[in-house]
Amino acid sequence: MNNFTFFSPTYFVFGKNTENEVGHYVSRFGGTKVLIHYGGGSVKRSGLLDRVIKSLDESGLSYVELGGVVPNPRSGLVYEGIELCKREGIDFVLAVGGGSAIDSAKAIAAGSKYDGDFWDFHSKKIPITEALPIGTVLTLAAAGSEGSPNTVITHEDGMLKRGAAGEAIRPVFSILNPELTYTLPPEQTANGIADIMAHVFERYFTNTKDVEVTDRLCEAILLTMIKESPKVLNNPEDYGARANIMWAGMVAHNNLCGVGRDQDWSSHAIEHELSALYDVAHGAGLAVIFPAWMKYVLDHDVNRFAQIATRVWGCHMDFDNPKATALEGIERLKAFWGSLGLPLNFDELGANEKDIPYMVKTIGLKEDESIGNFVPLYNDDIEKIYKLAL
Amino acid sequence: MNNFTFFSPTYFVFGKNTENEVGHYVSRFGGTKVLIHYGGGSVKRSGLLDRVIKSLDESGLSYVELGGVVPNPRSGLVYEGIELCKREGIDFVLAVGGGSAIDSAKAIAAGSKYDGDFWDFHSKKIPITEALPIGTVLTLAAAGSEGSPNTVITHEDGMLKRGAAGEAIRPVFSILNPELTYTLPPEQTANGIADIMAHVFERYFTNTKDVEVTDRLCEAILLTMIKESPKVLNNPEDYGARANIMWAGMVAHNNLCGVGRDQDWSSHAIEHELSALYDVAHGAGLAVIFPAWMKYVLDHDVNRFAQIATRVWGCHMDFDNPKATALEGIERLKAFWGSLGLPLNFDELGANEKDIPYMVKTIGLKEDESIGNFVPLYNDDIEKIYKLAL
Repeated sequence: MNNFTFFSPTYFVFGKNTENEVGHYVSRFGGTKVLIHYGGGSVKRSGLLDRVIKSLDESGLSYVELGGVVPNPRSGLVYEGIELCKREGIDFVLAVGGGSAIDSAKAIAAGSKYDGDFWDFHSKKIPITEALPIGTVLTLAAAGSEGSPNTVITHEDGMLKRGAAGEAIRPVFSILNPELTYTLPPEQTANGIADIMAHVFERYFTNTKDVEVTDRLCEAILLTMIKESPKVLNNPEDYGARANIMWAGMVAHNNLCGVGRDQDWSSHAIEHELSALYDVAHGAGLAVIFPAWMKYVLDHDVNRFAQIATRVWGCHMDFDNPKATALEGIERLKAFWGSLGLPLNFDELGANEKDIPYMVKTIGLKEDESIGNFVPLYNDDIEKIYKLAL
Repeated sequence: MNNFTFFSPTYFVFGKNTENEVGHYVSRFGGTKVLIHYGGGSVKRSGLLDRVIKSLDESGLSYVELGGVVPNPRSGLVYEGIELCKREGIDFVLAVGGGSAIDSAKAIAAGSKYDGDFWDFHSKKIPITEALPIGTVLTLAAAGSEGSPNTVITHEDGMLKRGAAGEAIRPVFSILNPELTYTLPPEQTANGIADIMAHVFERYFTNTKDVEVTDRLCEAILLTMIKESPKVLNNPEDYGARANIMWAGMVAHNNLCGVGRDQDWSSHAIEHELSALYDVAHGAGLAVIFPAWMKYVLDHDVNRFAQIATRVWGCHMDFDNPKATALEGIERLKAFWGSLGLPLNFDELGANEKDIPYMVKTIGLKEDESIGNFVPLYNDDIEKIYKLAL
């Protein structure tokens, strides 16, 4: 096990009707003038925005609204939000939505405390050290952004999708009401499930030895997803299943499952080019890329793949042929994701083989540079993985 | 799943040599004049106390020492510590040791900000709302006090063992170096293992439905303990195994495994009378009480016991007779704890049947009062559980 630090100070408020307490929590964490940041019309149609505003009113808070966040949130709205926060003297950013609204809110919160271009954070020119405090009312179990210090934004100039991170942008509180996910379209629910499981996979495939506790925690989240996911697709208003998935989504990404071990993250980088280029959902892209990546790197550590196949997918270990068990695990993952309606190849995602060279290039690796820690991947490896995903 | 809040803001610093950073972290969390609180001579003999003091010196911090914490920490030293903190103007309490040193430090930190008798907290007369900040350098994987808001103290007047809790006494940082546990006597290592597993059991046995994610997280910790525990008893300097157990001990008790579900905690109350009366280790007492409690309440939910038997202990489910599987799980637990050298009955613990009526009485329940949530236990139930443990 590697040395590590672990810090997850977000105050989580979980359960039915908890969005009605949002004003209390904004006040408790020092907010007085709030930017409410959200996506499209669904938070209005559902009445959620009204309930949030009522709660802020009851706590005597003032607010301005900024809607319009899109999936794979864009730089344009971030610039607009930063301008708005500075002009209005905003002291708290409240995201109401899923990972896109939260990631956009984080970029706004950091940019509002910075004199330069916020893209300096995402292009890794400078670290994020200061931000307005951020709270969230989560409406989608997926990105784990409600408990993470990460933000991913797509710059409209070139459609570059890039991430930034810093403790200053970790939400001070997050309100998680599973009922708010009832009205999601099935494909969005499924995309979220793939995203949550992918966050675990990125941590699971490691070369670090003696990490049983985090292996088991990773497996706990995956086993939960396997049991609960079909339930929510059969019955979108299954509160218990929605609740288990929503909490699993947070635990999958606040790094409890990843401490003390090298993590991989190459599949996320490979996927980002897909969702940036075709504007598809991140989770859908991950469902296409991850099985391909797994097959490509399988021989590096067959036993690790056999372990997840037996412990998580319930395969019987073939002691004469561990690789057969390892491959069976990958096939079970594909069958599981397929049963949720997720795309499993370029065609189903709407991606084109001819764009592969462009995507490889856009990742931006020089000839001797690589991504990923489990198996370092160079440009030709990445090209082969895209082709395995055709 | 029940509504819940989850808040675990402790900054954890984990790994080799991390105790040498303690001065940095005390400063970072605002300490300038430190009470170093510890137990017996082992932290001196091992050189740990010297390394801690060197690190405080390097950060320009002043300090006073208060040693002498004993297992099942006593009120007398707490009063002495409070007096010392007030007299010396201490602004930070640093516990160096296991759960006893940390629990004693927490009581001192709370008492130092209170004009009355600190026992008011433990006798539930008033809540803990304020305390000096607390840091820890952990030397024993067991109590989970390094990440919890709890303190358990034994009052020397009547040997009453009582707990108190409050966010103000949750450590602001905890330093966990698994190497510091190498020199523990085997029985202390084993007692710690029982304590960690018991913290999971108290949460696992619940009547709350739809709690798959926390069930799986509980099972993850137990599976880790089953794999790693024999290793450390075979080789006390197995870093990987010590590291897995140490982190599991934190996760077992910061309530990540217990959110959204009713918890039981009757076995802890029943055990407290044993460790208070005989001054035996808490973990040893739990090894005696828990299997007896499990047998006593088994019929309340045979399937839950069958679930843990199959998922954690690897039993094959007897679909014709789930209770047989459930009982097999309890027997596997006893065999496992026995293999670690833990006591499994009153005789092995050094307890006496004749004291049972006294212990039942000392728990202090009126005729119509009960403890525990999985199955509420009245005085005659508690007596029967003690007798099952003979």
